[in-house]
Amino acid sequence: MGETDSQYRYDILQKRWVIIASERGKRPQDFAMPSEEVESRFCPFCPGHEDKTPTEIAAVRDHHGRTNGPGWKVRVVPNKFPALRVEGTPEREAEGIYDRINGIGAHEVVIETPHHASPLATRDVDDIALMLRIYRERLADLMRDMRLKYVLIFKNSGLAAGASLAHPHSQIIATTVTPRTVAIELNACKEHHQVKERCLVCDIIKQELASRERLVSVDDRYVAFCPYAARFPFELMICPRFHQHDYCRSSDQDLRGLASVIKDVVARYREALSDPPYNFILHSSPNVNALPKRAHHWDTIEFDFHWHIELFPRLTRVAGFEWGSGFYINPTPPEDAAKYLRNTSV
Amino acid sequence: MGETDSQYRYDILQKRWVIIASERGKRPQDFAMPSEEVESRFCPFCPGHEDKTPTEIAAVRDHHGRTNGPGWKVRVVPNKFPALRVEGTPEREAEGIYDRINGIGAHEVVIETPHHASPLATRDVDDIALMLRIYRERLADLMRDMRLKYVLIFKNSGLAAGASLAHPHSQIIATTVTPRTVAIELNACKEHHQVKERCLVCDIIKQELASRERLVSVDDRYVAFCPYAARFPFELMICPRFHQHDYCRSSDQDLRGLASVIKDVVARYREALSDPPYNFILHSSPNVNALPKRAHHWDTIEFDFHWHIELFPRLTRVAGFEWGSGFYINPTPPEDAAKYLRNTSV
Repeated sequence: MGETDSQYRYDILQKRWVIIASERGKRPQDFAMPSEEVESRFCPFCPGHEDKTPTEIAAVRDHHGRTNGPGWKVRVVPNKFPALRVEGTPEREAEGIYDRINGIGAHEVVIETPHHASPLATRDVDDIALMLRIYRERLADLMRDMRLKYVLIFKNSGLAAGASLAHPHSQIIATTVTPRTVAIELNACKEHHQVKERCLVCDIIKQELASRERLVSVDDRYVAFCPYAARFPFELMICPRFHQHDYCRSSDQDLRGLASVIKDVVARYREALSDPPYNFILHSSPNVNALPKRAHHWDTIEFDFHWHIELFPRLTRVAGFEWGSGFYINPTPPEDAAKYLRNTSV
Repeated sequence: MGETDSQYRYDILQKRWVIIASERGKRPQDFAMPSEEVESRFCPFCPGHEDKTPTEIAAVRDHHGRTNGPGWKVRVVPNKFPALRVEGTPEREAEGIYDRINGIGAHEVVIETPHHASPLATRDVDDIALMLRIYRERLADLMRDMRLKYVLIFKNSGLAAGASLAHPHSQIIATTVTPRTVAIELNACKEHHQVKERCLVCDIIKQELASRERLVSVDDRYVAFCPYAARFPFELMICPRFHQHDYCRSSDQDLRGLASVIKDVVARYREALSDPPYNFILHSSPNVNALPKRAHHWDTIEFDFHWHIELFPRLTRVAGFEWGSGFYINPTPPEDAAKYLRNTSV
């Protein structure tokens, strides 16, 4: 293994790919346990510090702003310490009974706002919509790369949720293999559609809108509810009420509606749960253009998959039972969680 | 949903069962984020406080000790706040398109030693062997219950690993469904054996013993190594070098050998990583007696499955990427981790 290369390695017992990021090459003494709040004296994401990040990939700016200068409203840059590298061709190799691929992929950071202290819960809906539009732009652009099978957009907010910088940001990781969690969902949706010729997520939404007991926020186009088998207390699923497999097909107007639902639910978190750390994950369609051609596998994806967002506050500790079983113990029934969130005034 | 019942609920998108522990019924204000070290002024697990735990299920005692009195060396009690209840019959029901089962199962605590401050790393090998023998006893006893499909034994050590009490203890959770993580391993082993008529874990051990680059501790009967696709820095797998599907088949002498390997590796963790929090998980055979009869599915399990222990320090934070993808980014190549641990003097 080269000194500067990351690798994907396959866990043959767990049927899961893992990224071994040897560039980060952490030694025992490098694992100081962070315990203080996420805050650095110097913020590389604030306006005026554009030279402290790698050269920008995309941005929304005023008329007068120049690339890599201030005046931006949202900005996307490569991760300074990427887990994966964009350059190269995926090479698949055996190592005895094991399998590996060199660490090709993309690892980007979305700086969501120029304002250092502007969490989603208090940001203007129009500014959240700008962030959602740049998600769409990056997703569409990365899916033009036929090496990349999946693009995951996520956000860690707060130290306990994994954020290492306080300035509001999201991350994008694109991989040459489909992550196992996503593959399980894709298969569940495909199997449901094969038998029933209906979309599984559309069926879920229909039941949630009828029962209403797990609903938290709903408008014409989007819905947020606590999933029936939520892993975590106050976990939410947000999705379009209309069938859509690919987030990139959202219109600007759609994304403004989505922004207002997201703002509403994170404001409820903030109020009901004292501004908790949280994670936000977008599951959109995989890259159907990716080689090797999987046309026979993805041929119905437009009908059977339905993009959605997972959102959950980090309130409980995940421990041996969860790691060893893939099982979760949720101490707050989703019906109770939804009721608390609905009854929170924002 | 009754006020006092837990439920298993099926996540149809993720093909995973989740336990909704409504008895714990946590409201928003109940989620205070613990930040101090695990330590209580009063320890319910110390000798003399036997009346502070539910009535004991099993124990190893001196001649003079009486049940529920002091004089024990290892003690097993029901969890005072169980996620699952032993009483009742599993009832499987639909709820619209969803599925649920009432929360039948077992949730026990193994108090590993009478000494409040005796971590595995400094405990006598004979005392660790007693703990391993009581694991075997409980596993065998719970597998006589034909409602229970799987028994998971695990240990959380340290607050960041999920321990809420400092006194050394392990937990046992037995469930009426096979956890997804275990099911994936069982299937991987079965598929490998169907094609090759060899045990997958035996094949892994053979390659690890030949290459030696990921080996950490090895004796005649047991081996500890960093897995090729380790999720976490310094993760270890410990297993018998001989083929054995069921931990219960270990002899007393075997378990003394296993105890010395476990002590060796946790002492290496303690020395190399400054006494880190860690998780310990035993994956043994599922309960082949469990109803409904799955004889056709488990018929080769004696040959295709191989029990093992997963052990990993909690050094990194799991965040949105991991939750959203099931993917892990490990910043320490397993070869480097093994070398650090091998070179640690204990």
